[in-house]
Amino acid sequence: MIQTFLQPAEADAAPSLDTVETPALVLDVAKLDRNVARLRAHLDALGVAFRPHVKSAKSIDVAWRLFAKGVGPITVSTLAEADYFAAAGFTDITYAVGLSPDKIHRTRELVARGIDLSVLIDSLDQARALVEAARDGGVMPGVLIEIDCDGHRGGVLPDDPALVAIAGTLKDGGVDLRGVLTHAGESYAARGGVGLPEAAEQERAAAVLAAEKLRGAGHALPVVSVGSTPTAHFAKNLDGVTEVRAGVFMFFDLVMHGIGVCELDDIALSVVATVIGHRPEKGWILTDAGWMAMSRDRGTQRHPVDQGYGLVCDIDGKPFADLIIGDASQEHGIIKARPGSGATLPDLPLGTRVRILPNHACATGAQHDAYHVIVTGSRDVTAVWPRMRGW
Amino acid sequence: MIQTFLQPAEADAAPSLDTVETPALVLDVAKLDRNVARLRAHLDALGVAFRPHVKSAKSIDVAWRLFAKGVGPITVSTLAEADYFAAAGFTDITYAVGLSPDKIHRTRELVARGIDLSVLIDSLDQARALVEAARDGGVMPGVLIEIDCDGHRGGVLPDDPALVAIAGTLKDGGVDLRGVLTHAGESYAARGGVGLPEAAEQERAAAVLAAEKLRGAGHALPVVSVGSTPTAHFAKNLDGVTEVRAGVFMFFDLVMHGIGVCELDDIALSVVATVIGHRPEKGWILTDAGWMAMSRDRGTQRHPVDQGYGLVCDIDGKPFADLIIGDASQEHGIIKARPGSGATLPDLPLGTRVRILPNHACATGAQHDAYHVIVTGSRDVTAVWPRMRGW
Repeated sequence: MIQTFLQPAEADAAPSLDTVETPALVLDVAKLDRNVARLRAHLDALGVAFRPHVKSAKSIDVAWRLFAKGVGPITVSTLAEADYFAAAGFTDITYAVGLSPDKIHRTRELVARGIDLSVLIDSLDQARALVEAARDGGVMPGVLIEIDCDGHRGGVLPDDPALVAIAGTLKDGGVDLRGVLTHAGESYAARGGVGLPEAAEQERAAAVLAAEKLRGAGHALPVVSVGSTPTAHFAKNLDGVTEVRAGVFMFFDLVMHGIGVCELDDIALSVVATVIGHRPEKGWILTDAGWMAMSRDRGTQRHPVDQGYGLVCDIDGKPFADLIIGDASQEHGIIKARPGSGATLPDLPLGTRVRILPNHACATGAQHDAYHVIVTGSRDVTAVWPRMRGW
Repeated sequence: MIQTFLQPAEADAAPSLDTVETPALVLDVAKLDRNVARLRAHLDALGVAFRPHVKSAKSIDVAWRLFAKGVGPITVSTLAEADYFAAAGFTDITYAVGLSPDKIHRTRELVARGIDLSVLIDSLDQARALVEAARDGGVMPGVLIEIDCDGHRGGVLPDDPALVAIAGTLKDGGVDLRGVLTHAGESYAARGGVGLPEAAEQERAAAVLAAEKLRGAGHALPVVSVGSTPTAHFAKNLDGVTEVRAGVFMFFDLVMHGIGVCELDDIALSVVATVIGHRPEKGWILTDAGWMAMSRDRGTQRHPVDQGYGLVCDIDGKPFADLIIGDASQEHGIIKARPGSGATLPDLPLGTRVRILPNHACATGAQHDAYHVIVTGSRDVTAVWPRMRGW
């Protein structure tokens, strides 16, 4: 059984945020469920399928909560994730990072195990590598062509002749072209929600234009996949899109708060830490959550509100006004008033426990081996859910 | 057996940097050995003991290489490290992060297992918590008082009356005060070696002054511990110091290169990555090593030479001039010419493997479960050494 509930012996010790070894990763499952329900309702209303990105979770137990019943389609960022989720019964998987030729054999092994796998390419070289592999007559994954909708990362522009050339190479070589996929990565540059409806429309339009070009060249193209957490929430019309992907939406974080996608109260992930020292003359309170526990992610560094290495809350998750982890070394996090805020430090004696909201849930989660699961308003740890890692 | 050599079945596949799944962490053990020998020779000449900080390694196999024979004294940053290294036979351990009262029971468990453990405090509250715990007559760890030598983090100033008060509280409560410990964290602000001899002397002087104050108050104080990788290398005189601690010295990294402590050629740690795409019109080459493989550490961001998320080398470790990981998302690293350098992108076709030198070895190492061990000049992976994590 993958879900790890606390055993009676441990339960006798009344596991709670007051007693877990710190630093520890905390997941408020009530907020997780609320965040999932919110985006699912929005996408249902828009009439598109949902393929959540489990790179943020890296946990079977979290992935179960993303679907009303059973397992549904998922997106992954590594083949290790594909292996892990496949072993847990997820059968419809899109590997949404550009395919390296030397990983083709692993994608074929997944297909041979019964996984309906799609891979991502954006070049003729990748198409040729797939065609070359397919010559032995064995099973092959389906293919999506990555479309560049905003210049953020990889992909082919929708009107680039290379698009049709890649599709033709796949078709001639007997490799199954399924569709196009794009990711509005530039939406992370938004602040306070400004520009996000437009970014969502730009993402939709690029994917749909690319799909039309390919259909015009004789390809069936059943899949038109878009997605980023900001655009998924702000899309008003997804005509022509068949599925939406999003990952960090399930937890949210301070970056998403700064972008304008969530309230602080929606953030489901935090790190519980313990006060280990004071430097009152410097305005510092030292905790045992350094960058090893928070990650080095400084995603709010250029936001109007810089949250340092995280926003400090009391043990029950209520934020202290303008109290942040202002500096971090490997196992030390220094609580400071936000520069310019004039906030005064609360009285947090040695041994006090606090909770810290992360800049970037994906990065902070990756520093930990397990989620300590609670529900809003309680300190009881009701389960410990393991996380996977690696490639 | 803890050291994990490749088994015959795997060896048949001729494991090498050309075949390992990417991204993967690579350790050049010849450079590791050279870095260790360099600092050990310097400290031997200065007549002080060496207590390397294994938080950088988090590996038994690496820790073995730090000592000419058997095991020696080590420094750790978490009690999980203490447990892990104790299980491997390391018995002389200093836990060099300020002690939280709720961790005292774990430190006592280590002592009960036969570990000669020292813990770190810098407040009367911590001293009182130790004295309170000691009342049951059970075993207790030894105690070091943290001294602030440069305002960087925690610690008591050497001339603060609190120093003698803390020592007195421990003595009255029957807790073993062993010495003082300081860390010149501000030495990381140096560039090109400038100011480091002075920082080393400042660190030494603060520790020795504190020791003299305590000896004047009647404490024996056998331990005077100093250390940071920059000051350890630049110290010219360590009179009065009994031991030096350093961690990242064993691997070195781009931050240490920028500070002026090592040459690029000394950096023993890298990440092997594969080219997965090209955007020639943007001057980008995409790889499969994003921040999940490199960490989010941007430690060279404010250096005269900003190395992005890492400096790109060929598969044999030879740097490309001014080629860096200019941007990173979770599983994508974007190779770019360093801004302003005018460097041109080399021809790195799809599937090409590169090696990336990290900003911060401790942070990059923490993203991986194992070291792939090579020696300079060879691509053969001769061993896979596991890493530990957690708290």
